[in-house]
Amino acid sequence: MEPADLGHHISRRFNEDLEKVRTRVLQMGGFVEQQLQHAVTALVEGDSRLGEEVAHADHQVNQMEVSIDEECGRIIAMRQPTASDLRVVVAIIKTITDLERIGDEVEKIAMIASRLASTEQPSDKYREVRHIARLVTDMVHDALHAFARLNAEEALEIARRDRTVDEEYEAIQRQNMTYMMEDPRNIRRALDIMWIVRSMERIGDHAKNICEYIVYTVYGKDIRHISLEDAEAQIRASASDRNA
Amino acid sequence: MEPADLGHHISRRFNEDLEKVRTRVLQMGGFVEQQLQHAVTALVEGDSRLGEEVAHADHQVNQMEVSIDEECGRIIAMRQPTASDLRVVVAIIKTITDLERIGDEVEKIAMIASRLASTEQPSDKYREVRHIARLVTDMVHDALHAFARLNAEEALEIARRDRTVDEEYEAIQRQNMTYMMEDPRNIRRALDIMWIVRSMERIGDHAKNICEYIVYTVYGKDIRHISLEDAEAQIRASASDRNA
Repeated sequence: MEPADLGHHISRRFNEDLEKVRTRVLQMGGFVEQQLQHAVTALVEGDSRLGEEVAHADHQVNQMEVSIDEECGRIIAMRQPTASDLRVVVAIIKTITDLERIGDEVEKIAMIASRLASTEQPSDKYREVRHIARLVTDMVHDALHAFARLNAEEALEIARRDRTVDEEYEAIQRQNMTYMMEDPRNIRRALDIMWIVRSMERIGDHAKNICEYIVYTVYGKDIRHISLEDAEAQIRASASDRNA
Repeated sequence: MEPADLGHHISRRFNEDLEKVRTRVLQMGGFVEQQLQHAVTALVEGDSRLGEEVAHADHQVNQMEVSIDEECGRIIAMRQPTASDLRVVVAIIKTITDLERIGDEVEKIAMIASRLASTEQPSDKYREVRHIARLVTDMVHDALHAFARLNAEEALEIARRDRTVDEEYEAIQRQNMTYMMEDPRNIRRALDIMWIVRSMERIGDHAKNICEYIVYTVYGKDIRHISLEDAEAQIRASASDRNA
């Protein structure tokens, strides 16, 4: 066999391994997204048992993370990918860490939802929580979609939505502080809502992280700690360099 | 040059690269630890300017993370480490993610400390916060020490302390809820303390994660999602296998 063939062979095997592991990341992401939806349903519908089920299922997310992590280690060791191929694997290792942490936040939401379900059924069915929940659920869903198609433009658009989540978060926290001050009997409930909304806000952060790893995979740019505007400018510049 | 020599040569270069990057992780860790101490001082001494300085310095932590991350990518691409060597690099990539997130929590603590400093000077100087702060600062410090010496036994002992932090956290949250209910004028302050203590609890989690990566580096066992007792039993079993 020619050395060139061998290289081709290794690269084909690497691509096959990579596709398998990417499929598993999408399965893990799909499961986490479903868990998040169920946790919100448990809260809104006052379904205590559903809340408990969601909380109990978190260990499945943890197992997926450990198993994909090991698979990535095996791929690096066996196929010894370089440069851009390696970048893809490192981005996957980081992505599943964020998915696992979304799972942790979902578990917390589910536990509080389960507790609240047995004590109260508010007539507004947690309108403000439902709104921020919709925003972050969409972010997670769309981030996974952008991951599947390695679409960096989409990823940047999704990352930008995190600001709306943060604004919504601040507004709900202020509102709840007012409720507490108006009547101390609201304190326990308002605190529960504050913790739930805090978890939602963190889920938005993790979805944003996943989007940033997509940009890193596609463009090799680490945009985690620069503004999204600067990231876009840099990406536009490197795109026009390639076209020049 | 003989192939064996080449292997030796690559391995020596890898070890040199690795030592350099490990030193940088320790520098990053030392900086984060110092930031944490300053944030607590800002709170306890009511030093608003120190709080602001700490919050502003967080971008340095972010830069260290990006730079060490890139260095790890370069080492994997250039030296193509296998098995246990690769494990060390992957553990470093994960360790700096947790150090960066400790930095994020420190930033939040510093911002609240800075705000509180301009409004109040409690006579007890936040006794309960100081206690949990001491616990987590020690965890971070000792985790870095265990990282420096790759001491898995020490790492397991430190990871176990996270339970005490969680208990302390729950006790302070309950106490603050009582303050709120006793007098609504306490709500704003109690909430600030609750957020600070929540950040402390998260720092404990991150220190525990770092300890788990040390165990993973030394023994190749992923103990993240099993109980610490099970992890110890597994490690004892593999140690006695080696001695048999």
